[in-house]
Amino acid sequence: MGNIFSDRISDVPRSFIRDILKLTLDESIISFAGGMPNRDLFPVKEISAAASRLFAECGKDILQYSVSEGYPGLREWIAGRYKTQKDINVHPDNILITSGSQQGLDLLGKTFLNEGDHVVIEEPGYLGAIQAFSVYKTRFHPVPVDMSGIDTARLEQALREHPVKLFYAVPDFQNPSGISYSEENRRRVSALIEKKRDTLLIEDDPYGELRFRGAAKSSFHRFIPENTVLLGSFSKIVAPSFRIGWLVAGDEIMEKLVIAKQASDLHTNYFGQRVILRYLEDNDIDRHIEKIRASYGNQRDAMIEAIEEHFPGEARFTRPEGGMFLWITLPEGLPAMDVFKQAVARKVAFVPGDPFYVNRQGVNTFRLNYSCVDEETIGTGIKRLGVVLKEMMGKKGG
Amino acid sequence: MGNIFSDRISDVPRSFIRDILKLTLDESIISFAGGMPNRDLFPVKEISAAASRLFAECGKDILQYSVSEGYPGLREWIAGRYKTQKDINVHPDNILITSGSQQGLDLLGKTFLNEGDHVVIEEPGYLGAIQAFSVYKTRFHPVPVDMSGIDTARLEQALREHPVKLFYAVPDFQNPSGISYSEENRRRVSALIEKKRDTLLIEDDPYGELRFRGAAKSSFHRFIPENTVLLGSFSKIVAPSFRIGWLVAGDEIMEKLVIAKQASDLHTNYFGQRVILRYLEDNDIDRHIEKIRASYGNQRDAMIEAIEEHFPGEARFTRPEGGMFLWITLPEGLPAMDVFKQAVARKVAFVPGDPFYVNRQGVNTFRLNYSCVDEETIGTGIKRLGVVLKEMMGKKGG
Repeated sequence: MGNIFSDRISDVPRSFIRDILKLTLDESIISFAGGMPNRDLFPVKEISAAASRLFAECGKDILQYSVSEGYPGLREWIAGRYKTQKDINVHPDNILITSGSQQGLDLLGKTFLNEGDHVVIEEPGYLGAIQAFSVYKTRFHPVPVDMSGIDTARLEQALREHPVKLFYAVPDFQNPSGISYSEENRRRVSALIEKKRDTLLIEDDPYGELRFRGAAKSSFHRFIPENTVLLGSFSKIVAPSFRIGWLVAGDEIMEKLVIAKQASDLHTNYFGQRVILRYLEDNDIDRHIEKIRASYGNQRDAMIEAIEEHFPGEARFTRPEGGMFLWITLPEGLPAMDVFKQAVARKVAFVPGDPFYVNRQGVNTFRLNYSCVDEETIGTGIKRLGVVLKEMMGKKGG
Repeated sequence: MGNIFSDRISDVPRSFIRDILKLTLDESIISFAGGMPNRDLFPVKEISAAASRLFAECGKDILQYSVSEGYPGLREWIAGRYKTQKDINVHPDNILITSGSQQGLDLLGKTFLNEGDHVVIEEPGYLGAIQAFSVYKTRFHPVPVDMSGIDTARLEQALREHPVKLFYAVPDFQNPSGISYSEENRRRVSALIEKKRDTLLIEDDPYGELRFRGAAKSSFHRFIPENTVLLGSFSKIVAPSFRIGWLVAGDEIMEKLVIAKQASDLHTNYFGQRVILRYLEDNDIDRHIEKIRASYGNQRDAMIEAIEEHFPGEARFTRPEGGMFLWITLPEGLPAMDVFKQAVARKVAFVPGDPFYVNRQGVNTFRLNYSCVDEETIGTGIKRLGVVLKEMMGKKGG
């Protein structure tokens, strides 16, 4: 065959993490590279019981094709949860069940992005969003985030200089950095977006329920519902293998998204939707989430304690209030990729920052995951990493 | 919000069938409009048992994230089946598990189609493919099919006049028409495609195992493996609610498709992949398929018998050797859409041909599904439809 591939697919970055993870398969390596929830916390017995009851009571009903929007009962459950958890009024008709949040991103790209359209993305930003939007040959405008949220001056500038269609944000416990937007930051961002008739804020919220510190913040949906599309997922609070997420959008947008959904995969796997709903109905999800929070909170504390003990003082790090990740910034001029190579040789791994940037390489930042590693192992791994950092930063200084 | 939608989404036809099906929800209507397998044949007990055993033996393993290519065991099973059923050698590494065949089509569109690229499609052709490729703003070249396959003269002309990237074909028991390509037709098509370095044949085969008459034909993969991408699905032989299909492609194409898959939904629901494989391992799928074949074969016979008895002689119809559909051609000038309206008033429904054509409306053809209606009801429904047709064709003639 000749080269008959589309231009778009040639532009999408290959998953760097995928390649990196191959280097960390060695079981003697302590890996902080993962992006997965802790498998030991999956409610196996409860999900198994939910599936058995469903088969007994509904039989063939759960095996047929279903509707593109998603199972009505599940959409109602999600709407109810928004009301109790975030005091947001969302109608079930404005919820589309997606094949994971990742598909939500793809559907939004499909529905909104022409070639060359402008998208603001956080810097560092979520790799999956960069991939999903790259497919639609978008122009990215990265705006930095720090511990209080996104840089609003830079955001304002991007909105002034370009006709930005989408602004993609993960305001709670961001992947990769673990930072959250302050309430004040959210208000300021909302004020900027609200003025724009043709800009949508994509609020991706896979980790919001996993808060182990500080007070909950407002969803952008509370401030600027017309300009907001909300994304959510069961992957981090129940289990990821079902690939069940959702998005919340206004009527007009929903209509287009449903067309995109039909063309993409007809509907999200219905069997999984029914099992998840049955699990949610038969169990106390708040108690389950509390267990995850407590566990991740302790793991995060163990990691910060170990970093404070073992890392050189020049390495800065974020202090997440929830979620699964924290973010290290090394002194200028020390590429995380170089550190990674040494670290793997010392049997400890992480994800170098590079894939979380658009058009930047050799960055001095990296991501650490604490959700998949127990506290003791965190101590051991961070100590190993500290040795590598001290060596390399010593060399650097000397 | 202003109109910020992408051009592509404005071009995709809304699912006409969706709107039509709403008119047929009335339980007193006998519907031949569906496109679903018969729910009464789903192996509920066996799938339920497979799920229980999986939970007991694998527990949390089946609830975590997984790989984009799909579960290796399932890919091996599929490769083995190709060998025994079609004598095709396919390596498991060349199989990508997709979220239903529909996602296979979307991934192919993403991976191959630039705006304005040329695609040959059957006329009438599968609606889901028209939708999936429309998203990528393709130029369609419909080529007619009849009982012996695709019109090779017209196909040759399309291939000569345009740089055709994809030729989308459903050679066995096509949706919507029920026709199959003869062995001779397949050889001639292969000879045409083989000469083209930059044309891929997409062989969509959701129904191939559901043959109840005649001898099995060769897959295009046997003749022109380099130019063929094969699509398959468990929806019609096990159950659709899992949304598990697959595609088979060469190494270079696979690499791009995996990138598209990652960007689209990370991976197909893993829980469902494991349940399906466990079901396949623990049960005799051939015996199950035999049951479906026998049932659909009898339903097809009942429908043809009733058509011969009740339809006016001027209405022509296809005689499928397998699958779920047959196709009616009315005399010129009698729009199936007009018949549909009268038919619904008489409590019988079908899908008018319009959505299966590109750029044609008011066509004189329609699709009948026999897989979801029992033999007795088929008789009653076809009799009702015969009355409507005789009335309208009488009017037409007088």
